[in-house]
Amino acid sequence: MLDRVKSPDDMTNMSIQELKQLSEELRWEVIEQVSKTGGHLGSSLGVIEMTVALHHVFNTPEDKIVWDVAHQCYPHKILTGRRDRMGTLRQLGGLSGFCKMAESEYDAFGAGHSSTSISAIQGYSIAKEQLGKSRNNCIAVIGDGAITGGMAYEAMNSAGYLKNRMIVILNDNGQVSLPTGTMSAGGVIPASSLSAATSRLLVSKQFQDFRSVAKGLSGLFPENIQEFNKKVDEYARGIVSGGTLFEELGFYYVGPLDGHDLDNFVPILSKLRDSPSNKPVLLHVKTNKGNGYPPAEIASDKMHGVAKFDVSTGVQKKGPPGPAPSLTSIFANELCDVASKDNKIIGITAAMPGGTGMDIFGRRYPDRTYDVGIAEQHAVTMAAGMAAEGLKPFVCIYSTFLQRGFDQVVHDVAIQNLPVRLILDRAGLVGNDGPTHHGAYDLSYLGCVPNLTICGPSDEIELKNMIRTAASHDVGPIAVRYPRGAGYGEDKLRDLFGYELENGMPEIGEVLEIGKGRIVRKSKNKQTRDKSVAVLSFGTRLHESLVAANEIEDIAPDLSVTVADARFMKPLDVDLVRELAKDHSVIVTVEENSIGGFGDAVLHFLSLEGYLDTGDLRFRPMVLPDTYFEQGPQYEQYEMAGLNAKHIKGTVLRLCEKIDVPVMA
Amino acid sequence: MLDRVKSPDDMTNMSIQELKQLSEELRWEVIEQVSKTGGHLGSSLGVIEMTVALHHVFNTPEDKIVWDVAHQCYPHKILTGRRDRMGTLRQLGGLSGFCKMAESEYDAFGAGHSSTSISAIQGYSIAKEQLGKSRNNCIAVIGDGAITGGMAYEAMNSAGYLKNRMIVILNDNGQVSLPTGTMSAGGVIPASSLSAATSRLLVSKQFQDFRSVAKGLSGLFPENIQEFNKKVDEYARGIVSGGTLFEELGFYYVGPLDGHDLDNFVPILSKLRDSPSNKPVLLHVKTNKGNGYPPAEIASDKMHGVAKFDVSTGVQKKGPPGPAPSLTSIFANELCDVASKDNKIIGITAAMPGGTGMDIFGRRYPDRTYDVGIAEQHAVTMAAGMAAEGLKPFVCIYSTFLQRGFDQVVHDVAIQNLPVRLILDRAGLVGNDGPTHHGAYDLSYLGCVPNLTICGPSDEIELKNMIRTAASHDVGPIAVRYPRGAGYGEDKLRDLFGYELENGMPEIGEVLEIGKGRIVRKSKNKQTRDKSVAVLSFGTRLHESLVAANEIEDIAPDLSVTVADARFMKPLDVDLVRELAKDHSVIVTVEENSIGGFGDAVLHFLSLEGYLDTGDLRFRPMVLPDTYFEQGPQYEQYEMAGLNAKHIKGTVLRLCEKIDVPVMA
Repeated sequence: MLDRVKSPDDMTNMSIQELKQLSEELRWEVIEQVSKTGGHLGSSLGVIEMTVALHHVFNTPEDKIVWDVAHQCYPHKILTGRRDRMGTLRQLGGLSGFCKMAESEYDAFGAGHSSTSISAIQGYSIAKEQLGKSRNNCIAVIGDGAITGGMAYEAMNSAGYLKNRMIVILNDNGQVSLPTGTMSAGGVIPASSLSAATSRLLVSKQFQDFRSVAKGLSGLFPENIQEFNKKVDEYARGIVSGGTLFEELGFYYVGPLDGHDLDNFVPILSKLRDSPSNKPVLLHVKTNKGNGYPPAEIASDKMHGVAKFDVSTGVQKKGPPGPAPSLTSIFANELCDVASKDNKIIGITAAMPGGTGMDIFGRRYPDRTYDVGIAEQHAVTMAAGMAAEGLKPFVCIYSTFLQRGFDQVVHDVAIQNLPVRLILDRAGLVGNDGPTHHGAYDLSYLGCVPNLTICGPSDEIELKNMIRTAASHDVGPIAVRYPRGAGYGEDKLRDLFGYELENGMPEIGEVLEIGKGRIVRKSKNKQTRDKSVAVLSFGTRLHESLVAANEIEDIAPDLSVTVADARFMKPLDVDLVRELAKDHSVIVTVEENSIGGFGDAVLHFLSLEGYLDTGDLRFRPMVLPDTYFEQGPQYEQYEMAGLNAKHIKGTVLRLCEKIDVPVMA
Repeated sequence: MLDRVKSPDDMTNMSIQELKQLSEELRWEVIEQVSKTGGHLGSSLGVIEMTVALHHVFNTPEDKIVWDVAHQCYPHKILTGRRDRMGTLRQLGGLSGFCKMAESEYDAFGAGHSSTSISAIQGYSIAKEQLGKSRNNCIAVIGDGAITGGMAYEAMNSAGYLKNRMIVILNDNGQVSLPTGTMSAGGVIPASSLSAATSRLLVSKQFQDFRSVAKGLSGLFPENIQEFNKKVDEYARGIVSGGTLFEELGFYYVGPLDGHDLDNFVPILSKLRDSPSNKPVLLHVKTNKGNGYPPAEIASDKMHGVAKFDVSTGVQKKGPPGPAPSLTSIFANELCDVASKDNKIIGITAAMPGGTGMDIFGRRYPDRTYDVGIAEQHAVTMAAGMAAEGLKPFVCIYSTFLQRGFDQVVHDVAIQNLPVRLILDRAGLVGNDGPTHHGAYDLSYLGCVPNLTICGPSDEIELKNMIRTAASHDVGPIAVRYPRGAGYGEDKLRDLFGYELENGMPEIGEVLEIGKGRIVRKSKNKQTRDKSVAVLSFGTRLHESLVAANEIEDIAPDLSVTVADARFMKPLDVDLVRELAKDHSVIVTVEENSIGGFGDAVLHFLSLEGYLDTGDLRFRPMVLPDTYFEQGPQYEQYEMAGLNAKHIKGTVLRLCEKIDVPVMA
C-alpha cells in the first residue's frame, strides 16, 4: 500500500481499511528507517494514524498542516515524496530532522523550537481570508508539552478573539502535565464510543435537568442574565468532556478521541473540513508515544530520541564510549557539589532536564529543582524573583532557547543587576539538529547587555572552575556558555593543555577572578614583536588554537605563537588584550559565535584605545559566518564555518605573509 | 491623614473609615502631582484604594508587592516615603515613572515591560519557602491587558502546578478584552453584596440541586468518576463567579469584587493573608481607570498618559506645536499610502496601536489591521505565517518590546527567509520612560541574524523611502528602526540636509537600493587623504554628524570632512566603506545602539579586509555606552551617552591631533 503513495494525492480515494493497512506499513517503514539513522522515533510512531488521516482528508500542499516542533514529522516526510531519502535523515546534505519549507512544499512551516504552530496557522488562515481564497484549511498539530509555551497561549487568545477558521490538534500523549483541567474529566473516552456518548448525553433527561437547574442559579444575581445563561451550556460541555480552558480562549473544543482509531478520526476530520464555521477548533486527540512498536511502548522515554538500533529488540547501538563525560554532566555534577555546601543554590530547567543536566541535579536535590515547562521567559524572571529574595538560582537553558528569554534577561535580570546564573548549554554549532538549534548568537545578544558577566570555558576543568565562579558571584548576573559535546578526558587534558593532574582530575573547580583571562601557551621561540603572533580564544576553540600554534611554528620556525584563553567576554580582560597587543604584531581571535560577539568586542576596545592606528598591529576576528549551517556532524560544521585548527593556521600564516606555505589540508 | 503616613507602618492601625479618608487625600495628591509633571494618571487613579488596602493589610517591605508594568505605582510611591519627591517624577535625577528596586526597598521588583509580575512573585514565594521564612506573602497586581502576555500564562501554569503560596490580583479595568470567559458570568457583582451572595448561594437549594444533578451526569461515563465529581464543584463555582480559566491553571479564584470598596476589600485581603493555604490565589478585582477624577472618568483614554494639566478642568497643557509630525505618524501615513495600491499589505500591533501608528493605519484599513494583544512572540510568528501565504505583513513593535519576539525573528522569520517587515519604533534612547524602554540593543541582537536586512532612516524623508523599500522587498525579512520623536519639518530639512523640496515635502517615498548608503556631505575643502575625515552615520545621528562636520572645518580649516549616511547596516554597503577608507585617513561611525551593532560591523569588515593593518586608517566607533541611562530628556541622554555633535567633533579632532582646540562646549 505504501508503495502506491508517491504523494498524498494517492491517498485521497483510499478506504478506511486501506488507510489502516497503509498505517501499519508506514509504522514499520518509520521503524526500519530510524533504526538505520537514529532520530526521533517515539513521537513519530505516536502520530502514524494522525498523519495518514490528515493527508487523506486534507488536500496538501494547498491545505496547510503545521507540525509543532516537528520532530514527529517522519511519517509526514515519507508520505510526501521523501521516502527514498529517509536514509539521509539528519545527515550532512540529507533530510532535516524537522519540517523545513525549503525541503518540500508539503512542509508548510519549519520548526525545531516549540509552541509556534498555532501562530503560524493563524497567519496562514488570515492570509487565505485576505486573499479571498475559497478554501481555507489550516491545521496545527501541537503536543501537550508544546502547548504550555506562552506563545501558544498568546496565539489561542488571538485566534479565539479574531475568530479565525483553523484547527488545532492537541496531540496529547500524556508525557507532560497539562494545566489542571484541560484533560478530560473522565480520562480518555474510547473513541469508538465518543459520538454515541455525546448524542446520548445531549438528549438525556439528566442533561436537560442540569441545564435548567444551572440556569436557575442565575436568579441569585441581579444582572446580565443572558450572558450567564450562555455560559451554562459551555460549562455543561466542559464538565462532560473537559476542554473548558480552550473554550474560554474562544475555541470550539472537540474530544478527546483516540488518535489511533481511523474509523473515528477520519470522519471527524472530514466534518471539520466541511464545516462552514469560522470559529477555531481545538481537537483533543489522545495518542500513545511509541505506539505499535513494543520496545518503544515499554521504554520509559518511549524511545523519544534514539541512536541506530536493532529492529527486533529495540536495543540501541551505542558507539564506543567517549574519553570523557559530557560537558552537561560535568556541569551538573559540579553544581551538585557546590550545592552540597550552599543550600541557597537552586536549579531551574524549562522542560529540558536531561539536556541540561538538571536530571542529575534533580535526583540529588529534588526539593531544589524546578522544571517550569516550556517557559523560558518565566524561568528567567522567576529566577530573578528568587535572586531578589536571596537565593542563587542557576537557570539552565540551551543557548538557542534562551533567545525566548532574552527580554527577561535584559529587563528583569540585568537592569536590576540580580545575581541570576544563566547556564547556556549547546552554545556554538550543534550538529544533527541543524539551523534551528545552533547556539550561534548568544555572545551577540548578551554581549550588549550592561551588568552581565559572560564567560566560556575552554575545557571541562575550566567549566568546573566557572560553575564554582558563578556560584560565588553574588553581585550581579553571570552567564556561562559552552558547547554540545564531551570533555577531553584526563589524558588529553595532559597532552593538549599541559595540565599536570598528578592526582587525577581535580575534584572541585576553583573560583576564578572575574574578567581575567590567561595565557596558555608561550612560545619557546624568542622572537621580536614583529615575528610574534597571538591567538586569543574564547571557549572551546582553545584546543584548535593550540594545535594551530604548534603547526604554525613547525611550518614557519621564525614565528613565535602565543595562545591565550580569554575566559571572560565581559568584562573583557583589557590588561590581557593590552599585553598581547604590546608584545605581538598579530592578534587573531577565535570563538563559536556570529558577528557582534567576542572578537568584535576586542576589536572595539583596540580601536578605541588606538592600537590599530599605527600599523603595528594586525587583527582578525574569526567568527561563525553569517549563514545557517545545515545538519551534519559538529566537526564538519566547524570545518565549513572555518573555525578549525587549519583555518586558524591559515589565517595567521596569511597575515604573516607566509602565503607560500601550504596552509589548507 | 496623608500627612500622618511617613511609611506604610503608619497605616497598619487605621480604621476603614480612616483608610477611606486617606484614599481620598491620596487620590487628590496624585492628581495634583501629576498635573505638575505629567505621567501615567488614569491607571494610578484606578488603584488608589487597592494600594491603600494592600499597604494596610500587608507588612511591606517584608511582604512583597509587585506591580506589573508599574505605571500605576504613583500612589504606592507616595505612601512609601517618596511623597516629597513626586515633583521630580520621570525627570532627570528624579523618581522613575515605574517601580525600581534601586529606588526604594518597597519596590520589590522593577518593571516597565508587562506580564512579568507573576513570575517574579513566584520566585519570591519559592525563595521564602526555601529559606524557611515563617511569613510568606507575595502579591502581584496585574492588569487585564498584561495578563494576556504569554509569560503570565507560563507563570500561572507553573504556580498552579507547583502550588506556591501567592496572590495574583487581577486588576480588571475593562480596558482590554480578556480571553473569553475569564470575566464574571454576571458582570461585576457589587462588592458590597459579594459575600452575602456567595454565602446565600452555598446554602441554597438551587446550588445543592445543581451539584447533585451535575454529579448524576457522570453516570453516563464508565470511568474516573471521582475525578469527574471533583470537577463538578469547580465548574459550579465557575458558572456562578467566572474565573474558570484560572481554576484550570490551578489557582483558587476569588471575585470579582469592587476594587474601590474598602469595606469589602480590606477584610478579603486580610483573610487571604491569614489563610494557611499554599494554593495560589487569583483575586479578581474590578476597578475604574481614572476613578474619582471626573475629567479622567469621561476621557476616552481615561487620561492614561498625560502632559501637565489644569486640575480643575483636566485640560492638558500641550507644548508649542513641533515643526513636524512624529516619525510614528509619518511611518503610518506612508504605509497607508503604499497600502492603497497594494492590498497585500497588513498592519500588526501588539497592543500598542497609538504608539506604533497602527491606530492611523487601522482607521484607514480596519480589515487589514490586527492587534494581537500583548503578545510580541505571537505577532512575529503570525506574520511569518501570513508572509508564507503571500501577504506583506508589517509588524510594528517598539525596539525594546521586540526583545520579547527575538527567538521568533530568528526561528520563524529569518531562518525561513520570509518577507516579514519589522518596524521598530523607539530605537535608541527614549527619554522619560528610562532604562526599561530604551531601544539600545536591536542592532546587536538583529545584526547577527542571517538573511535579515536592517536599515535605519536619518530623517523623515528617508523614513518614507525605507517604508516604501520595505514594502517592495519581497525576497526576505527587513527591519526598519527609528527613534522616538518628531521629524525635522520642511525648513530644517532644507537647511540641515540640503534637500531642495521645490514642491514641498515629497508625497511618497522612493524605493532605495538594498544595501546602498550615500554620501551626504562632501567637503568644499580639497585636502589630501591624510587631512580627510569621514563620519559614517547610521540613523538619525546624521544631523549631529553634519553639525559636527561644519564645526570641525570651522575650527580646523586644514581638515576636510565627509559625512555619509549608511542607510543599511545589513547588508553593509562595503563599496561605500571601501571608498571612505580609500579617500580618508579617519573614519568615525555614529549610531544609537550599544556595542556589537553598526560600528562594530564596519570595524569587523575593515579588519577582515586589512584596512587597519597599515596605519593608514584610524577608526572609532561611537556607540551607546555599556550602561543604563535613567529617565530624562532625550537630548540630555544623548549628551550623557556622548553621541551629540560636540562629541563627534571631539572624537574627530582628538584623532586628528587637534587636541589643543576647544572641543567640548
